[in-house]
Amino acid sequence: MSEDSDQPSKPQAGKVWLIGAGPGAADLITVRGAKVLHEADVVLHDALITPDILALCPQATLISVGKRSGQRSTAQTIINQKLVECAYQYARVVRLKGGDPMLFGRADEELTALENAGIDYEIIPGVTTAFAAAAAIKQPLTKRGVARNVAFFTSTTGKDETEEVALPSCDTMVQYMGGQAAMDTAHRLLANGNPADTPVIAIENVSRDNQRMMRLTLGEMALGLPPCEGPVLVMIGEALRKRSTQ
Amino acid sequence: MSEDSDQPSKPQAGKVWLIGAGPGAADLITVRGAKVLHEADVVLHDALITPDILALCPQATLISVGKRSGQRSTAQTIINQKLVECAYQYARVVRLKGGDPMLFGRADEELTALENAGIDYEIIPGVTTAFAAAAAIKQPLTKRGVARNVAFFTSTTGKDETEEVALPSCDTMVQYMGGQAAMDTAHRLLANGNPADTPVIAIENVSRDNQRMMRLTLGEMALGLPPCEGPVLVMIGEALRKRSTQ
Repeated sequence: MSEDSDQPSKPQAGKVWLIGAGPGAADLITVRGAKVLHEADVVLHDALITPDILALCPQATLISVGKRSGQRSTAQTIINQKLVECAYQYARVVRLKGGDPMLFGRADEELTALENAGIDYEIIPGVTTAFAAAAAIKQPLTKRGVARNVAFFTSTTGKDETEEVALPSCDTMVQYMGGQAAMDTAHRLLANGNPADTPVIAIENVSRDNQRMMRLTLGEMALGLPPCEGPVLVMIGEALRKRSTQ
Repeated sequence: MSEDSDQPSKPQAGKVWLIGAGPGAADLITVRGAKVLHEADVVLHDALITPDILALCPQATLISVGKRSGQRSTAQTIINQKLVECAYQYARVVRLKGGDPMLFGRADEELTALENAGIDYEIIPGVTTAFAAAAAIKQPLTKRGVARNVAFFTSTTGKDETEEVALPSCDTMVQYMGGQAAMDTAHRLLANGNPADTPVIAIENVSRDNQRMMRLTLGEMALGLPPCEGPVLVMIGEALRKRSTQ
């Protein structure tokens, strides 16, 4: 809570909103997010934020902070600096992130930078891509008697490719930015004893006009996903098996 | 996709929207969800949907389908029937669930009932409580070098209390409806070797006027949470340790 902070905000600085844009469709942002976005002076947005979402803030100066996964961590330092600079230049600053800002969003580093600079901020949550994907394919991530819990994860290797990150263990496994890493995940899940016929759904460009859904099995995923250009979400587990009524 | 369905929808039936209301605040529903809610003829809502959200659909007939966790599964059958009945009575039917409808929402059973009855439906995702909680406490669920993945889970015991459900394994653990079950979760995590000083944040009534945040440790949680009347979300892991700048 900002009331907890010992650091008084500098009066000359503006306010920053970290907003989750949701999965991409313009009307899957929250009502609160859309309102603040519509009143923003400047919007610092990720590379993957869709034109549909940016059309919600035609009045704002747009700054693309085009970091994608895999880039050096210095890129994040530059985003942090830019965010603080903007707060001294503009009254209403929005930092717009895909999905929800508190999941895989490097939010801790941006919030630390804002706190160090004594800048007031607020966070507006968003719909994460996994839920939009589940809605699109009409299959819930949890299912009575079948899947009681869900893990969200990204890469399975660390900075050094020889370092293995522990794979989470849940009934339903959702891998963000799963395109390239999917094959490795499949191999590891098979090695852990998961059946080769475990259902997998990979979705590219969730909630956008060019959304593409691929149904496969864990065994097939071990051979690699079909080539994808957009961001891919991979969902694995018995909950993803197609209903007989579907 | 409804295009995939072999079952033609019966022309006399209305359409059903499963909508995620988000955590409770009226403006944390999506723009799409708010629009459909505003045009609904009838809204079947969970017991925990807030008056603030229901104020978005003053034109609709409201039906509380007051299932809470712990009730018999027949309650779900009655909800399924009611939903199908409403689709034959009204043109625009909304089934409104807290958070996102595809997580811990028994959606599979409701969708199966709709599909069996040949009723057209659509799902609108929502902000899950965990993200609203992370926004409120200003601490992300993932954190570079500290927490790479997140698990969402509910109870840790099955229908028969002697049956233990496997505890998921992730860096950040989020237990929904965690009030009563929190003590058991803590005991099991401690037994699995998690340090007693692992940070825990429990939040009651996330995003509502009466939101209450409690910071404690895993060791303290093993002694039980303070008494809570509203729904409680419990978040466990090093990502929840307070920042020095906070």
